[in-house]
Amino acid sequence: MDKPLVSVLNGINLNMFGRRDPAHYGTATLGEINEKLARLAGELHLSLEFFQSNSEGEFVEKIHSLHQSRAKGLLINAGAWTHYSYGLADALAILSIPIIEVHMSNTLAREEFRRVSVISPLAVGVVMGFGPDSYCLALRAMAGIIAEKHSRLE
Amino acid sequence: MDKPLVSVLNGINLNMFGRRDPAHYGTATLGEINEKLARLAGELHLSLEFFQSNSEGEFVEKIHSLHQSRAKGLLINAGAWTHYSYGLADALAILSIPIIEVHMSNTLAREEFRRVSVISPLAVGVVMGFGPDSYCLALRAMAGIIAEKHSRLE
Amino acid sequence: MDKPLVSVLNGINLNMFGRRDPAHYGTATLGEINEKLARLAGELHLSLEFFQSNSEGEFVEKIHSLHQSRAKGLLINAGAWTHYSYGLADALAILSIPIIEVHMSNTLAREEFRRVSVISPLAVGVVMGFGPDSYCLALRAMAGIIAEKHSRLE
Amino acid sequence: MDKPLVSVLNGINLNMFGRRDPAHYGTATLGEINEKLARLAGELHLSLEFFQSNSEGEFVEKIHSLHQSRAKGLLINAGAWTHYSYGLADALAILSIPIIEVHMSNTLAREEFRRVSVISPLAVGVVMGFGPDSYCLALRAMAGIIAEKHSRLE
Amino acid sequence: MDKPLVSVLNGINLNMFGRRDPAHYGTATLGEINEKLARLAGELHLSLEFFQSNSEGEFVEKIHSLHQSRAKGLLINAGAWTHYSYGLADALAILSIPIIEVHMSNTLAREEFRRVSVISPLAVGVVMGFGPDSYCLALRAMAGIIAEKHSRLE
Amino acid sequence: MDKPLVSVLNGINLNMFGRRDPAHYGTATLGEINEKLARLAGELHLSLEFFQSNSEGEFVEKIHSLHQSRAKGLLINAGAWTHYSYGLADALAILSIPIIEVHMSNTLAREEFRRVSVISPLAVGVVMGFGPDSYCLALRAMAGIIAEKHSRLE
Amino acid sequence: MDKPLVSVLNGINLNMFGRRDPAHYGTATLGEINEKLARLAGELHLSLEFFQSNSEGEFVEKIHSLHQSRAKGLLINAGAWTHYSYGLADALAILSIPIIEVHMSNTLAREEFRRVSVISPLAVGVVMGFGPDSYCLALRAMAGIIAEKHSRLE
Amino acid sequence: MDKPLVSVLNGINLNMFGRRDPAHYGTATLGEINEKLARLAGELHLSLEFFQSNSEGEFVEKIHSLHQSRAKGLLINAGAWTHYSYGLADALAILSIPIIEVHMSNTLAREEFRRVSVISPLAVGVVMGFGPDSYCLALRAMAGIIAEKHSRLE
Amino acid sequence: MDKPLVSVLNGINLNMFGRRDPAHYGTATLGEINEKLARLAGELHLSLEFFQSNSEGEFVEKIHSLHQSRAKGLLINAGAWTHYSYGLADALAILSIPIIEVHMSNTLAREEFRRVSVISPLAVGVVMGFGPDSYCLALRAMAGIIAEKHSRLE
Amino acid sequence: MDKPLVSVLNGINLNMFGRRDPAHYGTATLGEINEKLARLAGELHLSLEFFQSNSEGEFVEKIHSLHQSRAKGLLINAGAWTHYSYGLADALAILSIPIIEVHMSNTLAREEFRRVSVISPLAVGVVMGFGPDSYCLALRAMAGIIAEKHSRLE
Amino acid sequence: MDKPLVSVLNGINLNMFGRRDPAHYGTATLGEINEKLARLAGELHLSLEFFQSNSEGEFVEKIHSLHQSRAKGLLINAGAWTHYSYGLADALAILSIPIIEVHMSNTLAREEFRRVSVISPLAVGVVMGFGPDSYCLALRAMAGIIAEKHSRLE
Amino acid sequence: MDKPLVSVLNGINLNMFGRRDPAHYGTATLGEINEKLARLAGELHLSLEFFQSNSEGEFVEKIHSLHQSRAKGLLINAGAWTHYSYGLADALAILSIPIIEVHMSNTLAREEFRRVSVISPLAVGVVMGFGPDSYCLALRAMAGIIAEKHSRLE
Repeated sequence: MDKPLVSVLNGINLNMFGRRDPAHYGTATLGEINEKLARLAGELHLSLEFFQSNSEGEFVEKIHSLHQSRAKGLLINAGAWTHYSYGLADALAILSIPIIEVHMSNTLAREEFRRVSVISPLAVGVVMGFGPDSYCLALRAMAGIIAEKHSRLE
Repeated sequence: MDKPLVSVLNGINLNMFGRRDPAHYGTATLGEINEKLARLAGELHLSLEFFQSNSEGEFVEKIHSLHQSRAKGLLINAGAWTHYSYGLADALAILSIPIIEVHMSNTLAREEFRRVSVISPLAVGVVMGFGPDSYCLALRAMAGIIAEKHSRLE
Repeated sequence: MDKPLVSVLNGINLNMFGRRDPAHYGTATLGEINEKLARLAGELHLSLEFFQSNSEGEFVEKIHSLHQSRAKGLLINAGAWTHYSYGLADALAILSIPIIEVHMSNTLAREEFRRVSVISPLAVGVVMGFGPDSYCLALRAMAGIIAEKHSRLE
Repeated sequence: MDKPLVSVLNGINLNMFGRRDPAHYGTATLGEINEKLARLAGELHLSLEFFQSNSEGEFVEKIHSLHQSRAKGLLINAGAWTHYSYGLADALAILSIPIIEVHMSNTLAREEFRRVSVISPLAVGVVMGFGPDSYCLALRAMAGIIAEKHSRLE
Repeated sequence: MDKPLVSVLNGINLNMFGRRDPAHYGTATLGEINEKLARLAGELHLSLEFFQSNSEGEFVEKIHSLHQSRAKGLLINAGAWTHYSYGLADALAILSIPIIEVHMSNTLAREEFRRVSVISPLAVGVVMGFGPDSYCLALRAMAGIIAEKHSRLE
Repeated sequence: MDKPLVSVLNGINLNMFGRRDPAHYGTATLGEINEKLARLAGELHLSLEFFQSNSEGEFVEKIHSLHQSRAKGLLINAGAWTHYSYGLADALAILSIPIIEVHMSNTLAREEFRRVSVISPLAVGVVMGFGPDSYCLALRAMAGIIAEKHSRLE
Repeated sequence: MDKPLVSVLNGINLNMFGRRDPAHYGTATLGEINEKLARLAGELHLSLEFFQSNSEGEFVEKIHSLHQSRAKGLLINAGAWTHYSYGLADALAILSIPIIEVHMSNTLAREEFRRVSVISPLAVGVVMGFGPDSYCLALRAMAGIIAEKHSRLE
Repeated sequence: MDKPLVSVLNGINLNMFGRRDPAHYGTATLGEINEKLARLAGELHLSLEFFQSNSEGEFVEKIHSLHQSRAKGLLINAGAWTHYSYGLADALAILSIPIIEVHMSNTLAREEFRRVSVISPLAVGVVMGFGPDSYCLALRAMAGIIAEKHSRLE
Repeated sequence: MDKPLVSVLNGINLNMFGRRDPAHYGTATLGEINEKLARLAGELHLSLEFFQSNSEGEFVEKIHSLHQSRAKGLLINAGAWTHYSYGLADALAILSIPIIEVHMSNTLAREEFRRVSVISPLAVGVVMGFGPDSYCLALRAMAGIIAEKHSRLE
Repeated sequence: MDKPLVSVLNGINLNMFGRRDPAHYGTATLGEINEKLARLAGELHLSLEFFQSNSEGEFVEKIHSLHQSRAKGLLINAGAWTHYSYGLADALAILSIPIIEVHMSNTLAREEFRRVSVISPLAVGVVMGFGPDSYCLALRAMAGIIAEKHSRLE
Repeated sequence: MDKPLVSVLNGINLNMFGRRDPAHYGTATLGEINEKLARLAGELHLSLEFFQSNSEGEFVEKIHSLHQSRAKGLLINAGAWTHYSYGLADALAILSIPIIEVHMSNTLAREEFRRVSVISPLAVGVVMGFGPDSYCLALRAMAGIIAEKHSRLE
Repeated sequence: MDKPLVSVLNGINLNMFGRRDPAHYGTATLGEINEKLARLAGELHLSLEFFQSNSEGEFVEKIHSLHQSRAKGLLINAGAWTHYSYGLADALAILSIPIIEVHMSNTLAREEFRRVSVISPLAVGVVMGFGPDSYCLALRAMAGIIAEKHSRLE
C-alpha cells in the first residue's frame, strides 16, 4: 500500500532561510530543512512533496491543486502572508484535508503585526518557535492525525 | 456597428466556484456562469471578454490594458483581494470607464473582514448576494449605463 | 393563478427623491420610480405594492403586517435608518420571505457612517449605486429567487 | 385605599411576541404575558396599566404622561430602542418613580450591539433572560420597592 | 413688505421644558420661551412659526415642508435626536435656507454621547449653554444672516 | 421525594456585605441575606447550599464539584471576578445545570469596567440592582426553570 | 456706578484675522471686530478690555491676572489651543467668573481635531459659526448673565 | 547520569479534562494524558514531574520553586490564565530554563479573548491544537532543546 | 502610648525580590527591605506589620482584616495584580485608612500593561521607581499623614 | 567641598499654588513649599535652585541650561505640560542627570488625560499625591541617588 | 537680479543639535548645518535666512512675518511641535509659498507619536532620515520648485 | 575602478506613470524618469539598474537577488504595496545595503491608508512629494551615503 502523502508548502521569503536574521531563523537552509523532514517522513511511513513560492498566485493555485490530489495533509508556513493574505485563507478554506500551521520563530513573541494570523482559524493546530524542529513536530502531529482517521475507517 | 465590449474580471480563488463552500457560492462553475452571462450579453447587444487570475500582478496588468482597449465597462469580482489589495484599487483608479463590483455572496452579512471593500469607492455600484445572478444583474446595470452615455452623445 | 406579490418599502426622506442632492439621487421622483418598477413587474409576472413612510413606527408595523400577508418578497430602501435603526432590523428578522436591500447611491463610497448597514445581515443580497435602476435590478433578482423557490416546490 | 399603580411599557416590535424567534422569545403572546402579569399583580395588591407602541414619539409621550399620573413605578422593555434611543433615555430621566428594565432574553449573551443599554443607568435594576417570567420577577421587585418606600413614610 | 419668516423647531422631549432637570434646563416652559422669542422677533422685524414634535417622522416631514415654504431660516433644537438621527440629518441636507443649531445646555460639557452632533455639519452656526437666551441669540444671528443676504440682492 | 437542591455561590469580597459602601450594597450581612433566602426556599420547595470564597481556585473547584453533585441549579454572584476571570467562565462552561447571575447593585449603571461581564454568556438570565432581593428574585426564577424542566419530563 | 468689565481674549494666530482663509474667517481684521464689539458694549452698558497673544505663556498669565482683576466675565477664542492646551484649560479652571467660548467658524463642521475642545467643560456656553457676529452674540449672552447675577444680589 | 527533569504544569480547570466540551478537549483525562506523556519521556530519556492547580497563588509558587530545582525545562498549559494573569507571566519571567506553551485546542481559532496570550512572549515556542498530542510534541521539542544545550556544553 | 501601626502588604511574586530581573528590581531580598523599613519605622515612631502572599484570596482577606484592626495606614505593592485585579481594588475600597501604592520600578516607563493601575484611584499617593527606597519614602509620607490626622484631633 | 546642587523646576500654572482648587492642591503657596524644601535640603546637605515659568519656551531653555550647569539632579513638576508637551520631553531627554517627576495630587486617580505622562519614561521615578510632601519625598529620593553615585566613584 | 530668498526655520530643541542623542541626530551643530546649507545655496543661486526658537509664540510670529516678506519658499523642521502643535499648523496654513518639511532622523521609523505630523498636509513634500543632508536635499527640491514657477511666469 | 551600482525598484502600477492622476503624479512616464535619473547618476559617478514589476513575487525575488549582487544601495518606490505588503518588508529586512524609500506624491498628505508605510522602518530615509525629483533627491542622498561609507574604509 502507498504511503500517505503530505504536502509541505513554504511561502514568501522562506527560500531565504539561512541568509536571514539568524536570531529568529537559525542557519539551516530550506533545502537542509526539507532533507531532515524527508528522513523523518521515512520513519513515520509518510511520503512528502515540497513546494515554495514567493508568488501569492502560484501558491494559491498549488493549494487549489491539492483539492483533487491524493495528499492526506498539509503543513504550511506562509511567511509574512500569514498576517494579511485573505486570498490565501480563502484558498485554504476550500480544502478538506487537515492543515497544520508552522513557524520557525515564536511569532506571538515578536512585533505586533505578527501576532495576527488570518490562517489559524483554518488550521487544526499550530507549531511555532522551534526552528527547523517546528516542521518535524508538525509532521509527527500530522502522522498522528492521519493514523487516527485511518483507524476510524477500518 | 460593433457591440460595446464589457470586460468581466474574476480574481483570486474564483476559478474554484463549484468546488467551494456551496452555502455561500452555490454549485455552478465559473465556466457555467460565464456561459450564462454570454447569453444575456447577446440579448443586451453587448460583447464580453472574460479574464480570471490568481496573481495580483497579472490582474493589475489586465486592468492596465483596459486603459487603452475598446472596453466600455468593467464587471469585477476581486474575491478576497476586495478586502486588502490597495494595489488593485490604485489600478482601478486609473480607468475612466464605469466599474461595477460583483459578489456571489452577501459579503456585508459575513465575517468582519469581508465588510470592508477597498474598491467600492471606485465603483459606480455594487451587486451582491444573488449567486451567479449577481453577474447577470450587474451586466444589465452596465447595459443601462452604456446606453445612457451613448444617448447623451447623440 | 395570481401573480406573486412583492412589497416595495421606502423609508425616511425617500419621498423627497427628485428634490434632493441630484449628484447622488438623480432627478426622478419616487412616483416615477414606482411607475417604472410597475412596468417591469408586468414583464416579470409579478404584482407590486408600494409603501413609504418617514415614521419608524409605521414602517415597522408595515413590516409586521407582511408576516401574514401573501407577499412573497420584500425590496427595501430604508434611507438613513439603514445605518442606526436596530428596531427596523429586529422587525425584518421576524420575516421569513426573502429581503433585498436597495440604495440609489453607492453608500460604500460615501461618508463613513453610510458604510455600516444594520440590515444587511438580514438581506439575501444588496443592489446599490444605479439610481432608479437599483430598484429594477433588485426586482429582477427577486423574480429569480421566487421562481427558483417555486420550481423546487413542484 | 387604592392599590398602587404600576405602568408596564413595551416598545418596538414587542407586539410580535409569539411570532418572533422562539429560541429567544418563546411562544407566549404579549396579551398572554400581560394576563399572567395581571394575575400576579392581584396577589401583590398592585394595579397595572399596559401600553405598547412601535412609535418612539408615542412611547416618549406616554412616559411624559407618567410625570403627572398616579403611577408609583415603571416596568419597561424598550426592545431594540434599548440600544440606541437617547431620546427615550432623556424621557425616562425626567421621571422620579422607580424604573425596572426588563428583557425576555439574556441580552448580555447575544450580539455585540445588544450588550449596550442606554437606559440601564436610569433604572433601579434589571431582570433579563427568563422569558415571560422576567416581567413577573420585575413586578415582584417593584412591589418590594413600593412597600419599602411606603413603610418609610409611616 | 412681509416680514421674513423664521421656523423654530423643537424636537424630542423638549415639550417638557420646565419639568426637566433644572440644573441644565431652567424652569421656563417651552411656551414661555416661545413668547419671549416672539417679542424679540417683533423687534427684529421677523415673523416666526413654532413646531414641536416627539415623532421623528412628523419632525422630518415638517422639515420637508420647509423646502417649498416661504421660510427664510431655521432654528433647530433637536433634543437627543441631535446625537443619533441620521434621518434628521438627511432631511436637513435637502434644505437650502440657513440653519442654526440651538441647545439650552452646553452639550459639549456633559456626557460623552452628547458631544457628538450629527446635524452640526449642516448648520451655519451653533449657540448653546445660555438657557432660553440660546434661542434669542440664535434669532439675532439669523436676523443678521437674512439681512446680509437681502442687502446682497439689492 | 427530595426537594431540588440549588447552589448559591458568592465570590470575592462578598463576605463583607454590610460593611461595604452602603449606597450600593445596603446594610444586610451575607448571613442575613442567606437566611432570608433560606426562608424563601422553604416556600418554593427547594433546598439550598451556600458557599463563599475569596479564592478563585477554591471557587472554581466548588463549581467543578457541582458537575457531579445533585444540584439542579446555580445562583452566582461572582463579585469583581465577574469582570475579568475567564478561569471562572471556563469553569461555568463545564456545567449543564441552569445558571443565574446575580448582583446587589445595578452594575450596568456604575463604572465602565463593571459593564462587562465575562460570565453573562453562560447564564440563563441576570437579576441585578435590587439589593438582597436580587437573590430572592433569582431563586424564584430558578424555581420556575426547575419546575418547567420537571414537567417536561413527566 | 462703573460699567461691568468684560475681558475679551484672543489666542494663537487670531491677530491674523483678515489675512487668513476667508472661507472660514471672512475679511474683517481683529481690530475691526473689536471696534464693532466696543460699540455693542456701549449699548449694553458694559466696558471691555482686549488682549491677544501668540504665546501660551503670556496668555495663561493674562488669565491668571483676571483672578484678581475687576473683570466680571470672559469671552475667549483660544484658536488652535482650544484643541490641545490643557495648560490653558487649567488656567481657566482657576477663575470663578463666567466664561463663554467663541469661534468665528463652526468648528463642529470642520476637521476631526477641531471637534474636540479641551476648554468647553469650563465654559458656561459656546457660540460659533457666525463670523464676527459670534463675538457680538457672546457679548449679549454675557450681558444677560451679569445682569441676572446682579439682580439676585439686590 | 540522571535523566534531565522536565516539569509539566497544568493550570485552572485542566483537572476537568475528559468532562469538558469534547469538541475542543476530547475525552482523555489529565491522568491519562500524563501517563502517555510519561511513556514518551521514557523513550526520550527524560524524567517528568506533574503539577496541577486551580489556585493562581499555588501555581505561581510552584513556578518559583523551579528557580532552584534541577528542572531543565517547563511545559505549561495555563488554561484560561493564559489570557489575563500578568502575575503568572511575571513568575515565568524569573525562570532561566526554556518554557514551552501548550494548548489542547487551537486557541487562535476560537473566541476573541483566547487569541491573546500574556505568556507567549516568555516561551521558546508554542504547540496547540492537537489534543493530548500537543503535550507529546512539546515534550519532543523540549528534548531537542535540552540535547542541543547539552552538546554545546561538551 | 502605643506607636501607630502601619501595615505593609506585598503581593504576587514579590517574595522573589533579589532573584528577579536586577535591572528593574535590584538585588535586595524582601527580608532585607523589610529590615530596612523596620529601622526607619523606629525613627519615625511607628510600628509595622508585614504580610506577603501569592494568593489573591489570602491577600484580599488580609485587607478585610484591616477593616477592624488598629492599623492606621497601609503601604501596598500589589505586584502584577496592580494591573488587573478588580477584586483587590474592591477590597481596598472598603478600607477607610490611608493607602499608599508602592513600586520598586517606575511602572509608568515600562510595558503598556504596567501603565494601568486599577488600585491607584483608591490610594492617597504613589511612590515608584526608587527600588527599596520607594518603601522608605512611602513610609515617611505615611508618617506625615498620620501625624497630621492626629494633630487635627487634638 | 560644595554641597551638590539640585534643580527644582515648576511648570505651567504652578505659580498659582494656594489660589487653585484646594481639594487637589492644598493652600500652601509655591514660595512656602520652596522654603520647606530648602530647610530639608539643609538637613540632607544639598543646595537647591528654584525656577518657575508659564512659557514652554523659557522652561525648555532652562532645561537646556542644565546640560552644562553643575546641577546633579532635577525635580520637575511640569503641570499640565506633563500630558502633551513632547517638546519638553525631548528637552529632558538631552540631560544625563537623574530626573524625578513630582505631582501634588495623585494624577493617576483624576481625569483620563492626567493618566498619561509623556515625561515619565525619562524619569528615574515618580512621587505623587502627597501635596507639598511630594517634593520633600522626591528630594530625599534624590539625595539617596546622588549619594550612591558618589560612593561608587570613590 | 536678486537671488530668491528661502527661509529656514528650526523649532523646539533644535538649537541643541550636536548635544542631543547622536544615534538619531549625529554630531553636527545647527551652526555647522547652516554653514553647509549656505554654501549649497550659493551654488543654487539662492539666498537664505535662518531662524530658530524654542518659543511657540515667537516661532508662529516668525511664520506670520513671512506672509509679507519676499521669501519664496520655506524649509521647516519643527522638532517635537511637528506632532501636536495645531497652532503651528494654522500659522503655516496662512502662507502661500511652498513649504518643505525636514527631519534629521527617519521619524516614520521611530516612536508611535513621531509617525503623526500635523504639518505634513500643509507641505509640498517631506525629506527625512539623512541627518544634515536632509536640509541640503530639501533645498535642492526647493530650488527646483522655484525655478519651475519662474519659468511658467516667463 | 567601477562606479558603484544603485538599484532602482518600482512596484505595482508604477509602469503607468504619465497615464495616472496628473494632480498627484504629473505627466512624465517611468521611462522618462529613469532617463533623467541616469543622467544624474553619470554626474554622481554612480551606475544604475532599473526594475519594475506588478507582481509581488517577482519583486521580492529581485530583492533577494540583491543579497548577493554588487549593488551598493537601493531606491525603492513600492507603490501601494508600501501600505500592506509585510512580505515585501520581510524581503527588505534581509538586505544589508542602505535603502531609501521614494514617493512621487506626499503620501502623508493623502488618504488615511497611505499614511502607514510598512517599509519605512527598514529605510535609511524617505523622500516624497517632489514628483520625478523625489528620485533625483534620493539618488543624491544615496551618493552621499555611499561616499561616506567608502571614506570610512580608507
